[in-house]
Amino acid sequence: MLFKRLCIIGVGLIGGSLARALRDANACEEVVGCGRQLDNLNKAVELGVIDRYSTDMVEAVKDADMVVLAVPLGTMASAMQKIAPVLPDDAIITDVGSAKGSVLQDAQHYLGKHQSRFVAGHPIAGSEQHGVIASVSSLFQQRRVILTPTPDTDTQALESVRQMWETTGAEVVDMNVQHHDEVLAATSHLPHMLAYALVDMLAHMETRREIFRFAAGGFRDFTRIASSDPKMWHDICLSNREELVNMLEAFGQQLHNLTQAIRESDSEKINTLFYNAKTARDEFTD
Amino acid sequence: MLFKRLCIIGVGLIGGSLARALRDANACEEVVGCGRQLDNLNKAVELGVIDRYSTDMVEAVKDADMVVLAVPLGTMASAMQKIAPVLPDDAIITDVGSAKGSVLQDAQHYLGKHQSRFVAGHPIAGSEQHGVIASVSSLFQQRRVILTPTPDTDTQALESVRQMWETTGAEVVDMNVQHHDEVLAATSHLPHMLAYALVDMLAHMETRREIFRFAAGGFRDFTRIASSDPKMWHDICLSNREELVNMLEAFGQQLHNLTQAIRESDSEKINTLFYNAKTARDEFTD
Repeated sequence: MLFKRLCIIGVGLIGGSLARALRDANACEEVVGCGRQLDNLNKAVELGVIDRYSTDMVEAVKDADMVVLAVPLGTMASAMQKIAPVLPDDAIITDVGSAKGSVLQDAQHYLGKHQSRFVAGHPIAGSEQHGVIASVSSLFQQRRVILTPTPDTDTQALESVRQMWETTGAEVVDMNVQHHDEVLAATSHLPHMLAYALVDMLAHMETRREIFRFAAGGFRDFTRIASSDPKMWHDICLSNREELVNMLEAFGQQLHNLTQAIRESDSEKINTLFYNAKTARDEFTD
Repeated sequence: MLFKRLCIIGVGLIGGSLARALRDANACEEVVGCGRQLDNLNKAVELGVIDRYSTDMVEAVKDADMVVLAVPLGTMASAMQKIAPVLPDDAIITDVGSAKGSVLQDAQHYLGKHQSRFVAGHPIAGSEQHGVIASVSSLFQQRRVILTPTPDTDTQALESVRQMWETTGAEVVDMNVQHHDEVLAATSHLPHMLAYALVDMLAHMETRREIFRFAAGGFRDFTRIASSDPKMWHDICLSNREELVNMLEAFGQQLHNLTQAIRESDSEKINTLFYNAKTARDEFTD
């Protein structure tokens, strides 16, 4: 038994899937959920994802030995502020946010004496769906979870969080926080911006109806991430603003160069870029 | 029986799938293939996609009543130049290129008296795979095929090409050529540029290895089209250059505005764009 009482604040796709995986592995005695939407919380109980819930964080974290903050990044600070005064002295706290610098800053400001037992984490898993209804216990299997411990992080807390994620079938990797935010800006945050920006642009075009009518499979795959939760992505943009703006500017320059090459029918430049991209992309297996 | 002798020039994913679908429907007596890669042509015979082949276009189009040009856009002009002097007088000619303005110009320059029996066409189907090995008879089922007839197009030729595609299970739509090139620049050509440009940029970053290691499912879907045939896409860029450059410039401006909104933490602008994109994207079913 890893935990006696696991508290999941935010029982959505990630929080719900984590609870399911840990229950399946018989890793905790009791799972307490916390959230704002009663229908989602009732559904979570009905599905057996959590044992019970409270809409009050103060109530929910009572006697918890592990607290998982699975809330949007913009809500992280206020959640920490609320729970800090009432957290048990030995409780371990972790989160699942897609940006880690901002979360560690929040922890520094608001978690007080619990700071060293806070382990910032980010499971590289998910989909454009959300809510406990979309949760599955296999979500993290063979996926990577990045932890970004600091020199102040309690070793035992770090090991507990690592063990928790390994129990879900994930591979856990430690990473420097700045490095995490750079890599994620490149592989996740920038692509989401491109997909949102493209679909928004096309939706504003006069030929909107035909555009969507004649879109093929490639377009569907390419724009799938534009169906992701706008509120969540708004928060990610602001939480990882600096790295994301750097990445957007670099991409703007790259696109400008490609546009120029096409304008000038510069076959060599076009071919080099396309071949290089294809070679890199083919290294993935689908 | 639609055709006595169907000649497919370019027995790849599209040409091969068309041949398969027409054979399955018993729509032609004989299918003659033409191409440059002997291994691909032999494979096509072995798979029963074509009856026989020639590597010489002049030989291949002999006595054909339907000729399908399924060659890269950059090769279209030279293919027309080669076959024009030897095409049977009543042969119908069509193509499957992703840009239509350039192909109609090629036809005007090189097809001479056969020009009115040339029907420009574009099946909105395919994948990032290529070669006859990837061909399947169901590729066009419930997909759209756009034809861009001109005032000079022979009515019977148009009807024959329409019937051919309907036989494969596709829905055939007529469209103005300029309109086709605009809509396709938006829904297909621009997204491919974004995917190629992104993967090329990331592949040049110092953290390249980690970037691809920590990429999640969303990134895979988003960049799948960057595995498309670089040569084919080089040709599409140049064939639809004007529309594509317009679209790239509009997107550059859109991206600039989003970057500015993120830089300024302009929540309202960010939220509006994301919600609008999600709403438009959700209209698709996956």
